[in-house]
Amino acid sequence: MELLIRMVKNASVAKYELQKLSAARKNQALNRAADALVRERERILTENKKDIERGEANQMSQGLIDRLRLTDERIRGMAGGLREVALLPDPVGEQLEEIIRPNGLKIEKCRVPVGVIGIIYESRPNVTADAFGLCFKSGNAVILKGGSDAICSNKAITSVIRAALREEGITEDAVQLIESTDRSVTREFMRLKEYVDLLIPRGGAGLIRSVVESSTIPVIETGTGNCHIYVDASADFSKALPVIENAKTQRIGVCNACESLVIHEAIAGKFLPELAKTLGAHRVEIRGDDRTQEIITCSPATEEDFATEYLDYIISIKMVSSLEEAISHINRYSTRHSEAIITEDKDAAEKFLNEIDAACVYVNASTRFTDGFEFGFGAEIGISTQKLHARGPMGLKELTSYKYRITGNGQIRA
Amino acid sequence: MELLIRMVKNASVAKYELQKLSAARKNQALNRAADALVRERERILTENKKDIERGEANQMSQGLIDRLRLTDERIRGMAGGLREVALLPDPVGEQLEEIIRPNGLKIEKCRVPVGVIGIIYESRPNVTADAFGLCFKSGNAVILKGGSDAICSNKAITSVIRAALREEGITEDAVQLIESTDRSVTREFMRLKEYVDLLIPRGGAGLIRSVVESSTIPVIETGTGNCHIYVDASADFSKALPVIENAKTQRIGVCNACESLVIHEAIAGKFLPELAKTLGAHRVEIRGDDRTQEIITCSPATEEDFATEYLDYIISIKMVSSLEEAISHINRYSTRHSEAIITEDKDAAEKFLNEIDAACVYVNASTRFTDGFEFGFGAEIGISTQKLHARGPMGLKELTSYKYRITGNGQIRA
Repeated sequence: MELLIRMVKNASVAKYELQKLSAARKNQALNRAADALVRERERILTENKKDIERGEANQMSQGLIDRLRLTDERIRGMAGGLREVALLPDPVGEQLEEIIRPNGLKIEKCRVPVGVIGIIYESRPNVTADAFGLCFKSGNAVILKGGSDAICSNKAITSVIRAALREEGITEDAVQLIESTDRSVTREFMRLKEYVDLLIPRGGAGLIRSVVESSTIPVIETGTGNCHIYVDASADFSKALPVIENAKTQRIGVCNACESLVIHEAIAGKFLPELAKTLGAHRVEIRGDDRTQEIITCSPATEEDFATEYLDYIISIKMVSSLEEAISHINRYSTRHSEAIITEDKDAAEKFLNEIDAACVYVNASTRFTDGFEFGFGAEIGISTQKLHARGPMGLKELTSYKYRITGNGQIRA
Repeated sequence: MELLIRMVKNASVAKYELQKLSAARKNQALNRAADALVRERERILTENKKDIERGEANQMSQGLIDRLRLTDERIRGMAGGLREVALLPDPVGEQLEEIIRPNGLKIEKCRVPVGVIGIIYESRPNVTADAFGLCFKSGNAVILKGGSDAICSNKAITSVIRAALREEGITEDAVQLIESTDRSVTREFMRLKEYVDLLIPRGGAGLIRSVVESSTIPVIETGTGNCHIYVDASADFSKALPVIENAKTQRIGVCNACESLVIHEAIAGKFLPELAKTLGAHRVEIRGDDRTQEIITCSPATEEDFATEYLDYIISIKMVSSLEEAISHINRYSTRHSEAIITEDKDAAEKFLNEIDAACVYVNASTRFTDGFEFGFGAEIGISTQKLHARGPMGLKELTSYKYRITGNGQIRA
C-alpha cells in the first residue's frame, strides 16, 4: 500500500513536467520507446513466455492464451502504434474559445491534459504500450494495472519504455505499473481520487461493473455493445444484406458487432428468407421472435436474448409493425453504443437519428465503423458508452480537459 | 423504494419527449412556470412557513433559517430566473463537428441532452426552481432531492411547476421531487445508474464527499474553493490591493472568495503593511507564516490554515522566494477552483497560467469572477472542480452530451 501511495505521488509530480513538454519532445520519446521495444524484443518475449507457461499450467483457455501471447510481429505492432501516435497532432494547448467580457476581461478556454490517468485492463499485454502512447501524447501520467496473467510481460514492456524515457531526459514516472496482483491493492487504487483524475477500465462487462461499483475516481465506462440494425419498410435489400453480414460476421468478438435485428413486418416475408441465406453461409444461428419463426426456421428468441451481447455467431430478431415500435424496442435493450437503420425514407432516417439514444447512430452503414481509426481520430483508447465527458470512440482529445485562462488589468467584481 | 423506482422510470420515459421539444415550446413552458410561481406565491409562502417553524422549533441557526426563508421578493426572483433561462439560446441540436470520411460516410457530432439528471442539494429552496429551469431548457428530465429542512417549500414549488407543464401539454415528469427524507432512499437513488445519467451535488464539502463516496452514477463535483492570490515581485500595488480586498471581502461565504495569499519576498516589506491596512478596514484576521510575522503583526499560520477554506473574515499568508515556489505552494493546497497572480511581468503571467492546475487561472483580476453569469453563460448550475466533462462554471452547454449521427449509402467495413 505504501508503494501504491508513492506511485500516485510520483505521478502527481510527473504530470506537471508532462503538461509542459513540447509536441516535438513527446514525439521523439515515443519513437525512442518504439525503437527500444523492437530492440529489446528478446527480453520481452522471454518474460512473455513465463506468463504463457503459467497460463498453460493453470489450464487457461486457448483463446486467452492467444490474447496473452506476444510474437515478434506483435511487438513490432506495438512499436508501430507508438510511431503512429507520434504522427498525430498534439491536442494540448489548443484554444477552444475566446470570450472578451464587457469589463475587458479576456477569457480563453484552452485544452490541457487530464493529469493522472489510471487504466485497469485484462490480459492483452499490447494495451500496456498502447495506453502509454495515448496518455503520454496527450500530456498525462498513466498508472497501469494489467491482468495478473500478463504480469511478467507488462513488467518487461513498462521497464523498456521507462528506460527509453530516461534516455530522453523525461520523467520515467510518465508510466508506472502496479505490479501487485493483490486485489485489495487495486481496490485501494480506485479510491485514490486525490491523486488520480480519471480511471478507464478496459475489458469485459464484469471488470467494468466492478470498477464502476468500487471507484471514487471518475470512471469512463467503455465497451459493452448490444448493437441493433433495424431494417425499415423502405429498406434497400442490396444495402441491408451486406451491412448486416458485415456487422455480424466480419469480427464477432468486438463491441461494435451487431447482436440483434429489428425487422419491419411489411418487408419481413421477402427479406427474412434472403437474410437466412446470407447469415446461413456464415453458420450464424438465428433466434427469432414468434412472428419471425412463422416465416423462417429458427430458434426462439427470449427476453434474455434481446438483452444479450453474444460476441458469437448468434443473432436475435424482433419483428415490429412501425418505426416507433422499432425505436422503442432498441432504446429499451440498447447499451447506447451503436445502432443502425437501413432505409430509403429520409423522414424515417431523421427520426431514427434523433430519437435513438446511443453514442453512434447510423443510417445505411455498418455498426462496425464505431472505432477511433475509422472515425479518423488516428488512435483509440476505447469506446465510451456513457454520456459524460466523452461518448463513442475516444482518441487523444478525449484524454484532455480544459482550463480557463483569464487576463485582466485589475478588474474587481461589483 | 418502489416509489423511487417508479420515479426514475418516469424520468426515463420523459427524457425522450423532452429531447424532442422545440426551443419555442420550452421557453413558453418556462415562462408559464414563472407566472405560476408568482400567482401561487401565497401557497408557497404558507408551505415555507411550516419549514421555518419546524426549523425554529429544532433550534436551527439564524443563518440557516435565512437561507430557508422565502419572501415575495425571493419568489419573484425564482420566477425571474426561469424567464432569463427562457431567453438563453437552446444548446440542443447544435452541430459540433462534421467529418466526411474517404469512404463517403458523413459523421456529424451533435449536442444532445444528457438525459436524466439528479440534483442533491441542501436547504435553499430556490435551487428547486433554478435546477428545474436549467435542466429543462437543456432538454433533460431532472429528479430533485432537496434538504429535508425545506421539504414543504420544495413540494409546493415542484407542484406549481408540474401543474404549469401539464397546462402546456408537456410531461410533468420533467421535474420530480424525492419527498422521502429517509437517508436510505437517497443512498438507493445514487446507485440507480441504469436510469440516471448524471448526479450533481450542490452544498457543503460533507454533502459532496458523501455523494462521491456512495454514487455509482457519474458525479460532477462542485464547490470547494481554497482560492489563492499570488502577489509577484513585479506586482502593481494599485491592482493588487483592490483585487485582494474584492476577492476576500466582497462576499465571504462563496467558493470563489480568496482564502490565502502568497507574497513574493522582494515586495513583502512594502506590500504587507499596506495590505494589513486594507484588510484591517474590513476586520479580516490575518494568519501569516514566520516571515510574514516578522513584517506585520498577525496570528501564526499553520499547515492546516493553508488547507482551509475559511468562508470567513480570515486569510492566510505564505511568503515565497520565487515564482516557482509560489506555483508549487498553490498547486499543493489548491482545490483546483480559481487561482490568481498579480504581476506586470508577462513571462511570469504566462508561466502561472500554464503551470497552475485549476479550472480558472487569473492574471490581474479577482477570483470572484468565476461564475456562470460573469463568464457570460447567462446561467449556472455550479462550479465544477473536477476535470471530466465540465470544468469551472457550468451553464446550459455543460448539461448536454453529444451523439454521432452517421449517414452512409451501404458502407461496410473492410
